[in-house]
Amino acid sequence: MKLTKQDCIELDARDQLAACRARFTLPEGEVYLDGNSLGAMPASLPARMQEAVAKEWGQGLIRSWNDAGWIDLPQRVAAKVAPLIGAGADEVMVGDSTSVNLFKVLAAALRINNERKVILTEKGNFPTDLYIAQGIAELLGSEIRYVDSDASAIADALDDSVAVLMLTHVNYRSGAVYDMAALTRKAQAVGALAVWDLAHSAGALHVELDEANADFAVGCGYKYLNGGPGAPAFVYAARRHLNQVRQPLSGWHGHRKPFDFVQQYEPAPGINRMQCGTPPLLSMLALDAALDVFDGVEMQQLRGKSKALGDLFIRLVDEQLSDHGFGLASPRDCNQRGSQVALTHPQGYAIVQALIARGITGDFRMPDILRFGFAPLYVRYIDIHHTVETLAAIMASAEWNQEKYLTKKAVT
Amino acid sequence: MKLTKQDCIELDARDQLAACRARFTLPEGEVYLDGNSLGAMPASLPARMQEAVAKEWGQGLIRSWNDAGWIDLPQRVAAKVAPLIGAGADEVMVGDSTSVNLFKVLAAALRINNERKVILTEKGNFPTDLYIAQGIAELLGSEIRYVDSDASAIADALDDSVAVLMLTHVNYRSGAVYDMAALTRKAQAVGALAVWDLAHSAGALHVELDEANADFAVGCGYKYLNGGPGAPAFVYAARRHLNQVRQPLSGWHGHRKPFDFVQQYEPAPGINRMQCGTPPLLSMLALDAALDVFDGVEMQQLRGKSKALGDLFIRLVDEQLSDHGFGLASPRDCNQRGSQVALTHPQGYAIVQALIARGITGDFRMPDILRFGFAPLYVRYIDIHHTVETLAAIMASAEWNQEKYLTKKAVT
Repeated sequence: MKLTKQDCIELDARDQLAACRARFTLPEGEVYLDGNSLGAMPASLPARMQEAVAKEWGQGLIRSWNDAGWIDLPQRVAAKVAPLIGAGADEVMVGDSTSVNLFKVLAAALRINNERKVILTEKGNFPTDLYIAQGIAELLGSEIRYVDSDASAIADALDDSVAVLMLTHVNYRSGAVYDMAALTRKAQAVGALAVWDLAHSAGALHVELDEANADFAVGCGYKYLNGGPGAPAFVYAARRHLNQVRQPLSGWHGHRKPFDFVQQYEPAPGINRMQCGTPPLLSMLALDAALDVFDGVEMQQLRGKSKALGDLFIRLVDEQLSDHGFGLASPRDCNQRGSQVALTHPQGYAIVQALIARGITGDFRMPDILRFGFAPLYVRYIDIHHTVETLAAIMASAEWNQEKYLTKKAVT
Repeated sequence: MKLTKQDCIELDARDQLAACRARFTLPEGEVYLDGNSLGAMPASLPARMQEAVAKEWGQGLIRSWNDAGWIDLPQRVAAKVAPLIGAGADEVMVGDSTSVNLFKVLAAALRINNERKVILTEKGNFPTDLYIAQGIAELLGSEIRYVDSDASAIADALDDSVAVLMLTHVNYRSGAVYDMAALTRKAQAVGALAVWDLAHSAGALHVELDEANADFAVGCGYKYLNGGPGAPAFVYAARRHLNQVRQPLSGWHGHRKPFDFVQQYEPAPGINRMQCGTPPLLSMLALDAALDVFDGVEMQQLRGKSKALGDLFIRLVDEQLSDHGFGLASPRDCNQRGSQVALTHPQGYAIVQALIARGITGDFRMPDILRFGFAPLYVRYIDIHHTVETLAAIMASAEWNQEKYLTKKAVT
């Protein structure tokens, strides 16, 4: 029996996370399925930023480093991120971009495993991860080994030449999830360290870094963490590495005593040494406030809804779009899929533009991927129904086939 | 004849930059002499940030990358910074922190001069500059040569082993200025590259990077550029290096085609390759708006006022504070001094706290420096008079000698 609109309304009525949607301000009438690219705005943000700018900066000026607690802000934000990724607050630091943080942890990991040269990764990893690995390899004379994306190919390529296994937990295109614990175990069995990028996991999946025995991780503040455009990223180092780890971006905020202004760098104890320069505080204050939307939310519950939204989407696509040439680029099994579903279609770009014009925001990824992200805190079951119904209408009328939808924009 | 309060009122009345003060919102009744640590808030900021948060992020969501021009923001901000530092817009990029940008340019410079090992710098350079150099030296096996701060010691240490001369244009403690053109010439005469940190220059001094033939430079967005706490920093590469330069923080925003998502890093043409990850847009939008306070301001005029404010301060200190044990840690000659004056006093910390309690904000730097920054766009001559008069009153009454002023805070 086909799922109806009424079925979806009932799913929302039973959703224990439904009330969380009110913690966000969403554009009237819009269905936003791009929270995996830029998270929606938590409702508290305009007032909080006004306070940060007009009061803390404008009136408090330099005193706000002490009086508004700016100096400890990275640690406070890290303490909010930690439970979302299965880490201790002493293992997480916030600041810089994901790319910069990846550079830090790759350099740190290569230093620990300094008798080996190989960074093992997969060809479909997010480009900036590959580019950063290339940058560091060129600098240090490391070698990057690229293998196919499937877990068995990665496992087969692990040998005692591998210093670091670098993977993104959830693939940005397909949404396929790696088994973090299993691959970490296999990496460590050959003496490699495991570095995980959680860009598409943190805030949507039930991540357990400590339990998986991960060595290092990085992740993004502006996707499912809703920290605002370009929000600072986070970095994780397992407790066992904390006091040995050295990273080359040794700026003053990672110094043991930054305000002693001594000549010689001495890393701060623990995770603080992963800091570098002065963090972008306005962006960091936004992320800090944004993380409060997770108050009282169980990650398992969040993950449950994330899977259910994806399953519903796939089922409705099967039911309503089977004649229109779409493929499914994501795993059908929700346990192997992150919080997004990717379809393929030769006219994917134009179809996404036509959807956006109808008030439904997904995005397009080369060459033919239509990507729909399901942020479980604010996406409803009825939104999924409306999306597939609208897709069906757009396909039936060939509404996508217009010049205005076929012309590519700067950022897709 | 001693200078009077009335004399200072008349100096303000004749000041051609006096109207610029209205471009800032300053706390009522406060004299703010710490713009060299955190610039004051431009008056447009609260409304601009509200628009950025509630409208561009909250309503525009992912579309704002195109519709609000976020994707070109770093270039637009760079184009505003360029004329303030005597550079072309094609030579400047904005993003990351000063420390991270210094890492990029040191790595780039060491790569150009890859047959040499030595980074030459001076012992009194700002600590994060030294720490970053130490980080990169440890990574690449470079050697750091530390010499005394005076220009002749630096010139003497330049030889054909030096790959990079790394200096801060204006010393953060004393305010002493190096002759950028002369030292750059001497460095280049032995085949070294010159890397300048403009943290205490940009936005207050008349900097001419191109004319001085500098190779690389970095600088801070949150001091005299007033971009807000932790604002993104800038990075400069001379036009002659643009298409050869490679830096190892090769994130996707520095890629030739970031949204093609290809596997291999290929640097963007020109200065864009100095970008790394996604920039912190809320902080970047604040800096963008803040830079408009320089509209119509001539840098020579700004520098003229900067010198005059410092000269006035020193003259008044001579006239009113001669019996109280202060020393002058800054050059007396305004041409050798940046936009700040540093005094020394064994009780410097407590005296600064007592001043702050009286509504006059300067700062303290170890071990005994009282630092007063004169941001020429919003500091008045009368403010200088009031400061020295208040200092004299605090010293005469030993008001500083109280427990609450003697106890150190986290950030000094």
